[in-house]
Amino acid sequence: MDTELKRLINDIKKQGRSDPGNCKATLQTSSILAGRFRSDVKIRDHEITIDEPEAIGGSDEGPNPVELILAALGSCQEITYRAYAAALGISINNISVEMEGDIDFRGFFGVDDNIRPGFEKIRARVKIESDAPESDIERLRKTVNSHCPVLDILSNKVSVDLDLIVAVEA
Amino acid sequence: MDTELKRLINDIKKQGRSDPGNCKATLQTSSILAGRFRSDVKIRDHEITIDEPEAIGGSDEGPNPVELILAALGSCQEITYRAYAAALGISINNISVEMEGDIDFRGFFGVDDNIRPGFEKIRARVKIESDAPESDIERLRKTVNSHCPVLDILSNKVSVDLDLIVAVEA
Repeated sequence: MDTELKRLINDIKKQGRSDPGNCKATLQTSSILAGRFRSDVKIRDHEITIDEPEAIGGSDEGPNPVELILAALGSCQEITYRAYAAALGISINNISVEMEGDIDFRGFFGVDDNIRPGFEKIRARVKIESDAPESDIERLRKTVNSHCPVLDILSNKVSVDLDLIVAVEA
Repeated sequence: MDTELKRLINDIKKQGRSDPGNCKATLQTSSILAGRFRSDVKIRDHEITIDEPEAIGGSDEGPNPVELILAALGSCQEITYRAYAAALGISINNISVEMEGDIDFRGFFGVDDNIRPGFEKIRARVKIESDAPESDIERLRKTVNSHCPVLDILSNKVSVDLDLIVAVEA
């Protein structure tokens, strides 16, 4: 049991109640297209490379953007299980996730505008090891799924504002 | 102008019309929690590390899952601009994106269940260079935003099925 993490979460919750403004954050990333489809992304001190497979004209130097969505949900489930297991005092180990997303590329390529360009369906198999009673596991599962940020982002609409800025070529 | 890419996209569209089933794919990722919050993700031949900042108990070995959502949208916009500029025969260069996402961590930590755990609002500044007429740019912008897979995934709901598999500890 990660009592240090439990204490940390309790401290953050206390701070969140006494100083709610301190919990509001604006996260940022920036990216630049550095090949036909290769995008170099900066996220604080981290860098990742995103690309498309060769079959659609990319150079396959990294995962593509929709695969990254699956990766984000899998990791977010793992992290949220870890955090809430500590917060609720439920012992779990060996957390892993397998993700699948169904997509029809006729949506992206505009072959049929009735087909959405994004995932039609996402499935995840979350695997944990635990000796905790079934009722604790069920409480953990429900708490995780109502607080997992990426699950919320995918399951519900997010408002997205896009500005396009066009510079005339030098 | 990337005439090779234009030809490739036309070929894929033709194949999509004659053999729609061939455009349907199931993408997969798998991940394992390899530290308190560090998640090691496999995506085909690619590997990425996801983690949380030290302030919430992580070891900051990579971006966190919600930052990855911003990265995915930024790159997907860039790639979709590149693909549709070629498909529509509009010349653009130097594509880059700055992303911002507003989040209130009281949602994740369960301080207030009226606050969603995910992003409340996402903003993007997409920058391109082009000498194309305004009408072409507007046609490109509209076509991109109705075919960008990650924009669709975030702006609209996606059905997510989560299975939890619990093994008893050895």
